[in-house]
Amino acid sequence: MENWNKARNGIKLLMTPGPVEVSPRVLSALAQPVIYHYYPAFVEFFDETVKKMARVFKISHGTDVLILQGEGVLGLEAGVVCSINPGDKVLVFENGPFGKWFGEFVKNAGGFPVYFHEEPNKCFNLDLARAFLEENRDAVAMTMVHCETPAGLLNPPEDICKKAKSLGMLTIVDCVASLAGAEFKPEEWGIDIAVSASQKCISAPSALTPMTISKFAWEKIEEKKRPIRASYLSLLDWKDTWIAQKRFPFTPFTSEVNALSAALDEILEEGLENVLARHTEVARFCRQRVREIGLKVWPLSDEFCSPTVTAITLPESVNDAALIREVAKSSGILIGGGYKELKGRVLRIGHMGYQAQKSFMAATMDALADSLRSKNVTR
Amino acid sequence: MENWNKARNGIKLLMTPGPVEVSPRVLSALAQPVIYHYYPAFVEFFDETVKKMARVFKISHGTDVLILQGEGVLGLEAGVVCSINPGDKVLVFENGPFGKWFGEFVKNAGGFPVYFHEEPNKCFNLDLARAFLEENRDAVAMTMVHCETPAGLLNPPEDICKKAKSLGMLTIVDCVASLAGAEFKPEEWGIDIAVSASQKCISAPSALTPMTISKFAWEKIEEKKRPIRASYLSLLDWKDTWIAQKRFPFTPFTSEVNALSAALDEILEEGLENVLARHTEVARFCRQRVREIGLKVWPLSDEFCSPTVTAITLPESVNDAALIREVAKSSGILIGGGYKELKGRVLRIGHMGYQAQKSFMAATMDALADSLRSKNVTR
Amino acid sequence: MENWNKARNGIKLLMTPGPVEVSPRVLSALAQPVIYHYYPAFVEFFDETVKKMARVFKISHGTDVLILQGEGVLGLEAGVVCSINPGDKVLVFENGPFGKWFGEFVKNAGGFPVYFHEEPNKCFNLDLARAFLEENRDAVAMTMVHCETPAGLLNPPEDICKKAKSLGMLTIVDCVASLAGAEFKPEEWGIDIAVSASQKCISAPSALTPMTISKFAWEKIEEKKRPIRASYLSLLDWKDTWIAQKRFPFTPFTSEVNALSAALDEILEEGLENVLARHTEVARFCRQRVREIGLKVWPLSDEFCSPTVTAITLPESVNDAALIREVAKSSGILIGGGYKELKGRVLRIGHMGYQAQKSFMAATMDALADSLRSKNVTR
Amino acid sequence: MENWNKARNGIKLLMTPGPVEVSPRVLSALAQPVIYHYYPAFVEFFDETVKKMARVFKISHGTDVLILQGEGVLGLEAGVVCSINPGDKVLVFENGPFGKWFGEFVKNAGGFPVYFHEEPNKCFNLDLARAFLEENRDAVAMTMVHCETPAGLLNPPEDICKKAKSLGMLTIVDCVASLAGAEFKPEEWGIDIAVSASQKCISAPSALTPMTISKFAWEKIEEKKRPIRASYLSLLDWKDTWIAQKRFPFTPFTSEVNALSAALDEILEEGLENVLARHTEVARFCRQRVREIGLKVWPLSDEFCSPTVTAITLPESVNDAALIREVAKSSGILIGGGYKELKGRVLRIGHMGYQAQKSFMAATMDALADSLRSKNVTR
Repeated sequence: MENWNKARNGIKLLMTPGPVEVSPRVLSALAQPVIYHYYPAFVEFFDETVKKMARVFKISHGTDVLILQGEGVLGLEAGVVCSINPGDKVLVFENGPFGKWFGEFVKNAGGFPVYFHEEPNKCFNLDLARAFLEENRDAVAMTMVHCETPAGLLNPPEDICKKAKSLGMLTIVDCVASLAGAEFKPEEWGIDIAVSASQKCISAPSALTPMTISKFAWEKIEEKKRPIRASYLSLLDWKDTWIAQKRFPFTPFTSEVNALSAALDEILEEGLENVLARHTEVARFCRQRVREIGLKVWPLSDEFCSPTVTAITLPESVNDAALIREVAKSSGILIGGGYKELKGRVLRIGHMGYQAQKSFMAATMDALADSLRSKNVTR
Repeated sequence: MENWNKARNGIKLLMTPGPVEVSPRVLSALAQPVIYHYYPAFVEFFDETVKKMARVFKISHGTDVLILQGEGVLGLEAGVVCSINPGDKVLVFENGPFGKWFGEFVKNAGGFPVYFHEEPNKCFNLDLARAFLEENRDAVAMTMVHCETPAGLLNPPEDICKKAKSLGMLTIVDCVASLAGAEFKPEEWGIDIAVSASQKCISAPSALTPMTISKFAWEKIEEKKRPIRASYLSLLDWKDTWIAQKRFPFTPFTSEVNALSAALDEILEEGLENVLARHTEVARFCRQRVREIGLKVWPLSDEFCSPTVTAITLPESVNDAALIREVAKSSGILIGGGYKELKGRVLRIGHMGYQAQKSFMAATMDALADSLRSKNVTR
Repeated sequence: MENWNKARNGIKLLMTPGPVEVSPRVLSALAQPVIYHYYPAFVEFFDETVKKMARVFKISHGTDVLILQGEGVLGLEAGVVCSINPGDKVLVFENGPFGKWFGEFVKNAGGFPVYFHEEPNKCFNLDLARAFLEENRDAVAMTMVHCETPAGLLNPPEDICKKAKSLGMLTIVDCVASLAGAEFKPEEWGIDIAVSASQKCISAPSALTPMTISKFAWEKIEEKKRPIRASYLSLLDWKDTWIAQKRFPFTPFTSEVNALSAALDEILEEGLENVLARHTEVARFCRQRVREIGLKVWPLSDEFCSPTVTAITLPESVNDAALIREVAKSSGILIGGGYKELKGRVLRIGHMGYQAQKSFMAATMDALADSLRSKNVTR
Repeated sequence: MENWNKARNGIKLLMTPGPVEVSPRVLSALAQPVIYHYYPAFVEFFDETVKKMARVFKISHGTDVLILQGEGVLGLEAGVVCSINPGDKVLVFENGPFGKWFGEFVKNAGGFPVYFHEEPNKCFNLDLARAFLEENRDAVAMTMVHCETPAGLLNPPEDICKKAKSLGMLTIVDCVASLAGAEFKPEEWGIDIAVSASQKCISAPSALTPMTISKFAWEKIEEKKRPIRASYLSLLDWKDTWIAQKRFPFTPFTSEVNALSAALDEILEEGLENVLARHTEVARFCRQRVREIGLKVWPLSDEFCSPTVTAITLPESVNDAALIREVAKSSGILIGGGYKELKGRVLRIGHMGYQAQKSFMAATMDALADSLRSKNVTR
């Protein structure tokens, strides 16, 4: 048996909150012979992939789309450190670890994060959020996570970003776990920098960061006192090479671009609206089954729940690691546990992209129900 | 036809200087179903992959090996910016664009690069290099590129790094295009930070950066005034997560790790020494055929030539783009042109990893000889 | 989209009674570069594959194993026509179309089939079967199907074949849909010719026929008045080439042999007894869920039910084609309908090899339950 | 290392006369998840594949095309035994083992073969062939092999079949190693039954037999005294199932059909005429290089040489097995030796389908030239 075979030994279906199960078609694309990045057909192919990505971002007014060669966090960091100056005040909306993480990037850039905190089982209250923005109108930017995966929350960027824009702020949103699973319209919603990732609802492997950059964002990036260049983190390097000359700042991940392109074909062939409706439906079914088997959905209200991932309150008597192991062993399905402060408090089931299939969810919830009855899982 | 199919349309063999042709076994590994990065079997698999990587780096005295999730340039930048302080003097050996690039990273870190220049058709003179080190013994670090791919040169890091270490400097070497193709022994040669890449002699797709970090390097990294943390560039993040706890700072590229592991299996099964001998032999054959068909090898002496890539002086009458196109069209083989200052002055043929096969080289040189006779290629 | 992509469009899981869903590892094996059949390493590989096949057939006393290059029916026909002479009386046990089909092969060989019939919802009664054998002791051979897939029945070859052997008959058994899913021991049970297929419990694609041939069977085959040679149907051709000289009578299906070998590795690594237990358990779970959702298992008693496929009585009000379509559309799972005389009377769910996974069954039964409530499926 | 990996260990390119190297796109198609043969999209896909096959056969007047599920020899045998009656006289043109093999099938059918022999280094003389037909006008059928691979000959079926048809004979031609590599027009040339194979110029794996059956052939098949039915060899079974009802006589090889379809896409996208021209050109180049390295082409005249395979006279002093091993070891390229009576007398190089690439041929001939100089290969 090859070693890579052992690495997935026994697992037949990933229902984890990313990386997610990937379709056979995407895996086929990944497995194609490698291509040289400056072969003209590849350059054209990369360009087409960017254009397909723009359709998924619903771009129609000229916002730029980049596909960074790194995991989503690369784009999140780059979005902040390329645009924020030392001394800048940045409003950081947070109700979970990814929200908080933006604050670290702000600090790395020499900025000062001011947090708008919410409990990890609720989304931001719009009235309070707007008031907070008003009070802090001297801030130059704000950040927010659309889907906070650790808690299965879907925050409301639309109203908050529009308000922030009206106050002249740069708006940076993490749509890593929502794009192509929940409605997301960066241009319409006043989002300057939106950052996603390949391994969530897009359903390709982890490796790439699709992101959007508005004209306003480019201005901020170029006006930065010491613009970031000649760096893996540099957005300007991509502007100067890819956007200006259809060149790359370094060797792109050609195999992963193949996979991303195939994944986008699947989304666009199915129709983005159909894809979103499928996520909504499977999420609803998941919550229904959670309750039928006697468990509780973690967020306080279904209105807070993301259509892409469901967090379930871990029953007191249950050992999460043992339960996940039991589900995997008895069914071949892998689900996720809690992350950071919610470790040991929730279970998580991903329903992103290829995973968002009612039959997969039925199998998962049956396996979960079965395993909860096993003695192996008690604390 | 799928789009990814069009991206390699007509190409049957990559003889470019990276990314390189990849074996069917590596492509199979890449095409496996995605795995969750915290599935215990994956964590163990990643650990085994790091250990195999260490064998290729010939590590036996406890130097750490990391596999960064990004293209080689990520490691080069990280190696410099994580270890250099503002105001530091850094000696930058350069006889090509990758040598020079280190200077940019030094400047990004606030350091002062002092260059030891050589012409792009020669390797560094050892006596002059040693004298330069002596004269600049106040420098805190030095950098060097082992194989400068644009010119097909293989520089001599062994003596220079040993000398630099004897003067207390931190030594940083780019072995992107040499590791697993030319002899390279970072521990024995006194190299503190050695940075490679997956898409050259290792013969996996581009996406990963294997690198070594000595104890001395870790000290410098930790002693840095504002250590780099919570960043895609942070080596400390990897120390605190992977090395300390077998956790990841963010989602690693699980599919690419599969591919890298399979590629390392191929190298270790063949035997690293056999692999190196194969590169040497194919390189020699390449130069012989270059001369037989009336062309000139670019480096001034065969002693300067890398066993992993051959740069050929472009005849005056020939249009490089047209020639590459003609070779591709008539034979399905893709070769490379010049890069940066050598653009329009050289052709380049990669013989790295899976490419380093005499039969592939025979086909390539026949196709090149044929195409040179075509009228389509004259300037 | 490639055409082959459209051919499975929308289907995410095959729960049909063969061909069955195949593991990613088997698909990887199938996708390897083609090999020349007389390359020594392939000859050795074929030999190893035959030996692994023998372990699955539990051969320990020198019975020969062949891997014919054709669908299972090739072996069934070859087993009969190579061994039966014109005028021979052959006892054909039948409680379904595959049982009956043996009679056609007997007639093609010029023999006279005498049928022992049973209703298609029951297995053979042992006392009646033994009496039938006694009464027809002038017969030269008998045939039986172990698992009659159209009805989900598992017949009892052990007692009947032992009795037939004690009367000097040649015994031919179809284990196409039982081998590696239900206990099957041709040597111990007195079976001279046992014929299976790659696309059922072995979980490789359809294309190959593993079969066993006892010494007694070879004698009959060689004693035939005009032995069959120089024919796709000839077993002697395989004896004269493969068994005698490790040569092939014609080009074997090298890619399919790769897949078969990987599928056998999976079975032997899991352990054949564990594999059989998994089938039994999933079959039991399937019948339980059938009843829970208000349907009836087709065979009259659970004792008759095969561990590899379950036939379900189609409710009067339901249109089978519409139901299968609805299940496929709503869940991406494909189940099977009735075959021949049971068309429109039963549904069938395969749980063979890779399919025999409780989680897959849970998803299937949930989808079936859901779809039965849809208006689209009524007759 | 997986076992299937060992089976091709070290081989990087197949230049054998079938099975041949297969393109990455075809391997991708092969590796797709298995589909159920009666899933409507598969039935439609099979139908499209038959239609593409008909385009390669240049069918425009309603001749039927079948894709038998077995190696080419299945179609050759079926073509003869389904149409020939006991006592029939059949003219068998032969200048090699495949020509002769037709005589065995005729005998199996109870017919009497009358041979028109030619030496294995020449094609049939047209005047003599026509005279032979005239003399034997009581024959009911004739058979011929278009490309006799063991000797690299391309026989002239056009004139001979037209003449035979004018005498009312059924004409059966083996185009296994010529279809899609050499011009072949069964309808225009008066061929009633033409039989090819998937693993030669079509460049898919071995497993399938594309064939054509004219109206006249169907009449003969149906008029046969005891028509062959309910048999793996039966063409009528395919007529009654696939042609009449779009059903299959047994489970087809769905994965292999995927591969065949992708291979046909590649041929039709390139353009059949371009494909044929490529074969002609590479064959010419092969013969030129054979002579340049001091060897002799086996057929007496270049006019006799097939564009799909070249037989080379083995020098007296050379051990063929040792030479093939040396070429494989030093270059990773596998070439073929002699078959049957030409064993030890010729070497063979396939240039069929994906192999027919000048660069592959250049590498092959260089490796051959090198290896001939090795001491390991002398007898």
